[in-house]
Amino acid sequence: MTELQLIDRIRRMARNPGIGDDCFIFRPRANQDLLFTTDQMIEDIHFLKAHNAQSVGERALARGLSDIAAMGGTPRLCLVSLAIPAGHEKWMEEFYRGLLRLARRTRTMLAGGDLSRSEKIYCDVMVCGSVARGKALRRDGARVGDRMYVSGRLGKSWERPIRPRLEFGRKLLGRATACMDLSDGLSLDLHRLCKESGVAAQLDQVPVATGSTVDRALQGGEDYELLFTMPPRARPPRGSYHIGSIVPGTPGTIRFENRLVVPRGYDHFRNV
Amino acid sequence: MTELQLIDRIRRMARNPGIGDDCFIFRPRANQDLLFTTDQMIEDIHFLKAHNAQSVGERALARGLSDIAAMGGTPRLCLVSLAIPAGHEKWMEEFYRGLLRLARRTRTMLAGGDLSRSEKIYCDVMVCGSVARGKALRRDGARVGDRMYVSGRLGKSWERPIRPRLEFGRKLLGRATACMDLSDGLSLDLHRLCKESGVAAQLDQVPVATGSTVDRALQGGEDYELLFTMPPRARPPRGSYHIGSIVPGTPGTIRFENRLVVPRGYDHFRNV
Repeated sequence: MTELQLIDRIRRMARNPGIGDDCFIFRPRANQDLLFTTDQMIEDIHFLKAHNAQSVGERALARGLSDIAAMGGTPRLCLVSLAIPAGHEKWMEEFYRGLLRLARRTRTMLAGGDLSRSEKIYCDVMVCGSVARGKALRRDGARVGDRMYVSGRLGKSWERPIRPRLEFGRKLLGRATACMDLSDGLSLDLHRLCKESGVAAQLDQVPVATGSTVDRALQGGEDYELLFTMPPRARPPRGSYHIGSIVPGTPGTIRFENRLVVPRGYDHFRNV
Repeated sequence: MTELQLIDRIRRMARNPGIGDDCFIFRPRANQDLLFTTDQMIEDIHFLKAHNAQSVGERALARGLSDIAAMGGTPRLCLVSLAIPAGHEKWMEEFYRGLLRLARRTRTMLAGGDLSRSEKIYCDVMVCGSVARGKALRRDGARVGDRMYVSGRLGKSWERPIRPRLEFGRKLLGRATACMDLSDGLSLDLHRLCKESGVAAQLDQVPVATGSTVDRALQGGEDYELLFTMPPRARPPRGSYHIGSIVPGTPGTIRFENRLVVPRGYDHFRNV
């Protein structure tokens, strides 16, 4: 099979005849800001060949969608770069099947990408979303006195499919003072949010997923729930879990059960 | 060194403090269409570790810029995903040095990306550009009677740096009937342009780079010059080479020296 034939197959699966020029042409609406994010998925680093190819494809897109959700955005399009070893045409088709199913459910258009050969499977998904001009949720707006919430229980296992919190994120527009998605574990991500905002956090409780532990909820990564702050009297959306509050202190420090929490989570380069 | 420290280093090199949220926020101007493209560079497929890291970085961005040039666009921002083996911090810094030098020269902002570990070096660069609404150069507008041109001599060696033809592409806006960049060899790329336009081509001559051959100019890839068509009486920009004309015939067929040219160029998946 040639590259052109493989691309034709993806084009048919995506039902997007627009793929074909050097670039994809996109016409943004007026009064919108665009959001850009990109995430890699690499064999033996982020997944194993034993994992279901459809799940890998779905997850590859879901991570970017979760970033869009964290800023209150609506996904518009994605670009998918994929490199596969010889003889992986079937794997590729399953990967795209999973990715495109989530793309359709979230109205994210597959706008193009790149296809190459490699020894290990490698993919990189760029997602572009939109949000009302100047309204994107940021990490740096948490203020002392704000209450802290998460959008769901934490410490879930890798195998479970990611449900990007897009609708939840949009409900926070104009209401949350700061927001981000939990992709590297609560302790590390909350540390980042507090550092960007120049504040400290007092953690009162952590909602733990069934079968998980507080430790895993704090230090495990890849929950893809939203972490956000709101002014003390604001009402959070249904399904929110109150976890603590923003307090004065050295920017980035977190207290839980009268101890300082060490920000620890997934870091590709620790001990390299 | 941790991931946060590595990202901080890139952030300082890019002089873009905006990198930090889940997504990069971009405000497009009204009356503009956006152009999206993405290209992978993989060790042992697109380059060797022996190649200069700065050149690899420059080339990784240049390929996307060339796609933007092919549609008459102006680059606005890029996202860079990079995966490197342990102990490659210095390589990464050189890679970014080369990439950022070209980014500055072409006013392309580094808007974010992703950093990961891997066994081999892998990178994927997404470029977003803009063009006046509805004015982007396409591949499907070549008409019988049009004259065919390229923006420079062909068959150049891999080692030479790519100069994306951004200014040249903008000069073609409203004048060229079709345009694309030559990334896989003239015979294959011209075949694609003719197929999209539903026409055939008569090739009269091929401008060959010093030290190269007609064969390499026809079948070698990665020239990154522009291939374009114009109505018979229109004047091409300075530095254009007239190579032939658009003729009636089976869409995609090319004649040169009274023979049919077999479209042949770089294909990652041929014989896989």
